[in-house]
Amino acid sequence: MHPPVAVAGEKNIMKVAELAGILGGKWQGDGQREIRGVAALQNAGPDDLAFVEGDRPLGLADACPAGCILVAEGAPFPGHTTIEVKHPKLAFIRAVEALLPPAETAAGIHPTAIIAPGAHLAKDVSVGPYVVIERGVKVGKGTRLGAGVCLGEGVQVGTQCVLFPRVVVYPGVHIGDRVILHAGVVVGSDGFGYVLAEGRYQKFPQLGQVIIGDDVEIGSNSTIDRGSLGTTSIGQGTKLDNLVHVAHNVHIGKHCVIAAQTGISGSVEIGEQAVIGGQVGVGDHVRIEGGTIIGSQAGILPGKIVRRGLFVWGTPARPLAEFKRMYAHLAHLPELARKVKELSRRISGESR
Amino acid sequence: MHPPVAVAGEKNIMKVAELAGILGGKWQGDGQREIRGVAALQNAGPDDLAFVEGDRPLGLADACPAGCILVAEGAPFPGHTTIEVKHPKLAFIRAVEALLPPAETAAGIHPTAIIAPGAHLAKDVSVGPYVVIERGVKVGKGTRLGAGVCLGEGVQVGTQCVLFPRVVVYPGVHIGDRVILHAGVVVGSDGFGYVLAEGRYQKFPQLGQVIIGDDVEIGSNSTIDRGSLGTTSIGQGTKLDNLVHVAHNVHIGKHCVIAAQTGISGSVEIGEQAVIGGQVGVGDHVRIEGGTIIGSQAGILPGKIVRRGLFVWGTPARPLAEFKRMYAHLAHLPELARKVKELSRRISGESR
Amino acid sequence: MHPPVAVAGEKNIMKVAELAGILGGKWQGDGQREIRGVAALQNAGPDDLAFVEGDRPLGLADACPAGCILVAEGAPFPGHTTIEVKHPKLAFIRAVEALLPPAETAAGIHPTAIIAPGAHLAKDVSVGPYVVIERGVKVGKGTRLGAGVCLGEGVQVGTQCVLFPRVVVYPGVHIGDRVILHAGVVVGSDGFGYVLAEGRYQKFPQLGQVIIGDDVEIGSNSTIDRGSLGTTSIGQGTKLDNLVHVAHNVHIGKHCVIAAQTGISGSVEIGEQAVIGGQVGVGDHVRIEGGTIIGSQAGILPGKIVRRGLFVWGTPARPLAEFKRMYAHLAHLPELARKVKELSRRISGESR
Repeated sequence: MHPPVAVAGEKNIMKVAELAGILGGKWQGDGQREIRGVAALQNAGPDDLAFVEGDRPLGLADACPAGCILVAEGAPFPGHTTIEVKHPKLAFIRAVEALLPPAETAAGIHPTAIIAPGAHLAKDVSVGPYVVIERGVKVGKGTRLGAGVCLGEGVQVGTQCVLFPRVVVYPGVHIGDRVILHAGVVVGSDGFGYVLAEGRYQKFPQLGQVIIGDDVEIGSNSTIDRGSLGTTSIGQGTKLDNLVHVAHNVHIGKHCVIAAQTGISGSVEIGEQAVIGGQVGVGDHVRIEGGTIIGSQAGILPGKIVRRGLFVWGTPARPLAEFKRMYAHLAHLPELARKVKELSRRISGESR
Repeated sequence: MHPPVAVAGEKNIMKVAELAGILGGKWQGDGQREIRGVAALQNAGPDDLAFVEGDRPLGLADACPAGCILVAEGAPFPGHTTIEVKHPKLAFIRAVEALLPPAETAAGIHPTAIIAPGAHLAKDVSVGPYVVIERGVKVGKGTRLGAGVCLGEGVQVGTQCVLFPRVVVYPGVHIGDRVILHAGVVVGSDGFGYVLAEGRYQKFPQLGQVIIGDDVEIGSNSTIDRGSLGTTSIGQGTKLDNLVHVAHNVHIGKHCVIAAQTGISGSVEIGEQAVIGGQVGVGDHVRIEGGTIIGSQAGILPGKIVRRGLFVWGTPARPLAEFKRMYAHLAHLPELARKVKELSRRISGESR
Repeated sequence: MHPPVAVAGEKNIMKVAELAGILGGKWQGDGQREIRGVAALQNAGPDDLAFVEGDRPLGLADACPAGCILVAEGAPFPGHTTIEVKHPKLAFIRAVEALLPPAETAAGIHPTAIIAPGAHLAKDVSVGPYVVIERGVKVGKGTRLGAGVCLGEGVQVGTQCVLFPRVVVYPGVHIGDRVILHAGVVVGSDGFGYVLAEGRYQKFPQLGQVIIGDDVEIGSNSTIDRGSLGTTSIGQGTKLDNLVHVAHNVHIGKHCVIAAQTGISGSVEIGEQAVIGGQVGVGDHVRIEGGTIIGSQAGILPGKIVRRGLFVWGTPARPLAEFKRMYAHLAHLPELARKVKELSRRISGESR
C-alpha cells in the first residue's frame, strides 16, 4: 500500500535455537519452542519473546510465562527457556527485525501525486496519494513519502527515508539517508527574525538552509526553521521527540537526543551526544558542549556555555549537585526563618 | 458541505417561555420575547440569551440589555426577563443546542477521497476531499472526516466522531464514539525509544497501539504516541487541549482535563478526574492518582507518585500549601539574609 | 510554480554605488564593485553584501573579505568598501529586497484545488494543489495558498497573504492583509471550555471568531483558538513564533512579539508592543499592559495584571530586579544556613 505504515508486516515463526543463532546467543531450556511474537516481560505469553535488563525485574521474570526470555550473559534463569546475550535490549531489537519485519511498502507513485517536471525520483521510491513535489527535488532509493507530503523546490531527500503523512519540507532543505520524519513535521520554515524600526517589526531575510544528517528521526509536529543567512543543521544519528522547536542557525551535533517540547533558540550550538530532557528552553547563542545532560524543564540563559559533560538543571540552569543542594535548603527555608527569629529573640533577651 | 464545520447551522427563534420549557426552568418577565442568539453577558443584546453563574457578575447583569438571562434558582433579577435553572452554565449549553443546532454535514464521500478496498465505512459517514483511508479501516455511523484526514491501515473510528482537516491516524489505532480530534492532531506516531549501543541510538520497536475512549476531545496539533510493546490509552470523557504531548505506554484515566502544551512522558499512569494545567511536564513512570490537581508549569520527577486528591505545584512538584509557604519565605530571603548578617555582627560585638 | 516558496528568485547584480543610492547611504572604497549576494559578516565573500551593527564585530570586520559592508553613519571602515547608513540591519533588509527579490508565484488556480461555488477569489491569487476552499470564502488580491491549505466556510483572507502548505483555517475566521501563516498553523479551532456536571465534562459552545490583523506572521504548527462566545484577536504587526498556543477570547495588541512554545490562556489581554519570550505560560484572565517584557519560561498566574513597561521573570513572575536579587540570595542559601547554624552554636555556647 502507498503510505508508510508503522505496524509490522508478515510475522515469521522462529524456534528458540534458531533465534539464538541469529542473535549470537546461548539458549537454555526448550530450543525447539516456536516464537511468534514479542512482548514486554509483564505481558508475554508462551509464544512471545521478552527480555530482562540487568537484574531488575527478577521477581517478575520468575512468574513470567514468556516463551523465551533474553537475559544478560551469566544471568541464567533456571526453569525458563532463555537466550543469554551480551545486551538483551539490543538483541531484542534484532529479534524483532527477524520476527516482525516491517511491512514492505510497494514502490510506485500514486497517480494523484503531483510531481514537477525536472524532479528526480529514484526508481524504487514510494510516493503516496496527494504528495506534492516541486521543481528540482531529488528523492533517493527506497524512500517512502506518506500521503500529502509536500517537498518544496530543490529539496533533496536521501535513500531509505520515511516521511509520514503531512510532512512539509520548505524549499532547499537537504535530508540525509535513513531519516524518519513523523506526521506533521515542518522543516525549513522561516526563522523568527525581525528588526524593530519605524515602530514596527520588519522581517529579516530568512534565506538560509536546513541540513538534516543521516539516521535522524524527528517526532510528530516538530518544527525546524531554516537559517536566516546561514544554515540550520542536525547531526547524524540525532533523535528529536514530538513538538520540538529548533530555531534558525542552530547546529545540533551527532547522536544527541532531545525530548518532547524542548525549544532551541537561534544560533545555539550543541555538541555531540548531548542528552536534553523535555520542555527545556535554550536561549539564543548558547553553546552546549558534547556529552552534556540537561534536565527536563531547565532553562539556559542566552549566551551561556554549558561545559562538556556537565549535568545541569533548573532555570537558570546550574550543575545538578549545586541545584539539588540549593533546593534541599529551599525546602528547609521556613525552618531556617524560624530559627533566625528565635536567635534574634534570644539575643535581644540577652542584650536587655 | 463536506468538511466538518465549527459554526452553527440554521438559527432557531424561540420564545422565552418555550426555552424555559426545554430547560426545565421557571421564566419571569416577558415570556413571549423572541430569542435569536446567544452571547456573553457583557455583549448580549435584546435578542440574545445570556447567563450568570452564582452571584459573580451582578453589577454587570443589572445594566445588561440581554433578551433573557439564565440565573440560578433562588437568584431572580427583578426588572429582567430571566429563566431560573439549577445550573445556568449547563442550561446555556442546552439552550445553544436548541437555538443554534450545528450545521448538518451531508453524508457522503467526496469523489477525491481515496478509500482502500476492504475498508468499511458506515452508510452515513461524511468523508471530505483528499481523505486517505487504508486497508482494514472501519468508520462508524455519523462520523465526519475533514479534508485531508489520513487513516492508516486497520484504524477503527467509532460513531459520531469529528476528525477535523489534516488529522493523521497511524495504523492500528482504535478511536471510540463521539471523539473530536482537531486539525493537525497526530495519533499513533512512534514513541521516543532508543537503545544507546555501539556509539549510536538504535530504534526500539514501537509496535503497540493507541486506544482513545468515547467522548474524548483532543486539541489542535497535539500528538499521541503508540505504545512501544503495549498500549497508550486515553480514558472516556478526557479532554486534551492544543499542542499536548502524550508519550508511549501512557494510560490516562476517564474524565481528566489536560491543558495546552503539557507533556506526559512514557509509561505514566494518570487516574480518573485528574486536572492538569498547561505546560506541565510529567516524567516517565510517574503515577498520578485520581482526583489530583497539578498546577501549570509544574514538573513531576520520573518515578514519583502523586497521591489521590493532592494539589501540587512547582518543579519538582510539591503540595501547594508547602510550595506557597516555601515561596513566601523565598520572597523574604533577602531580608532574612540581612537579619542573619545583623545578628552575626551583634554577636561578634558582644563576644569582643 | 504553485506553492509559496521561501527562497529567493532571480538574483540581481548591483554595483556598490547603485546600492548606496537605493539605500540612501554614502559609499566608500570601490563603488564599481559588483554585489551578487548577501551573507553574514563571518561568511561573506567578495561578491557579498554584509552588515555590522554598532561597534560589536569590529575585529571580525577587519579581516572580512566581504564585497561591501553596511556600517553605521560615522563608523567608517578604512580599507573596506562600505556604505554608511543610519540603520545597517534595516538597510540590509532593503538591500536583500533589491538583490534577491522573492520568486514570483504565478497567479492561477491549480486544477486539483476544490473551490466551493460562491467562494470569491481575487483574479491574481495563487492557489496550490489540493487546496480546499469552502462556501462563502473570500481571498484578496495577490494572496498565495500553499498545497493542501484548507479554508473553512466564510473565511476571509486579505491581500498579499502567504499561507504555507497544510494551514487549516476553521470557518468564519478573518485574516487581514500581508499575513504570513507558516505550514501546519491552525486558526479557529475550538477553545478548551467545558462544564463539569453530572460527573463528566460537557462541551461549552465555541461559537466565536478569530480576527488576525494586517502584517501578522505566525510560525509553524502554532494554534489559535476561536472565541467561545466572543472573539480571539491578534493585532496588526504582531509576530508569533512556532508552536505558540493562543486560547479562546484572547486579545493580543499590535506589534507584539511572542517567541516559540509560549501559551496564552483564555481571556488574556495583551497590550501593544509587548515582548514575550519562549515557553512562557500566561494564566487565564491575565492582563499584560503595553510595552511589557516577559522573560522566557516565566509563568503569570491567572487573573494577574502586569503593569505597563515592566520586565518580569520567573514562576510566579515578578519584576526582573526583584527576581534576580531573590535568586542571588537563593544561590547563597546553603552558606546562609551554615551561618545560622554557627550563630546558634555560639549563642548556645555563650548561654551555657
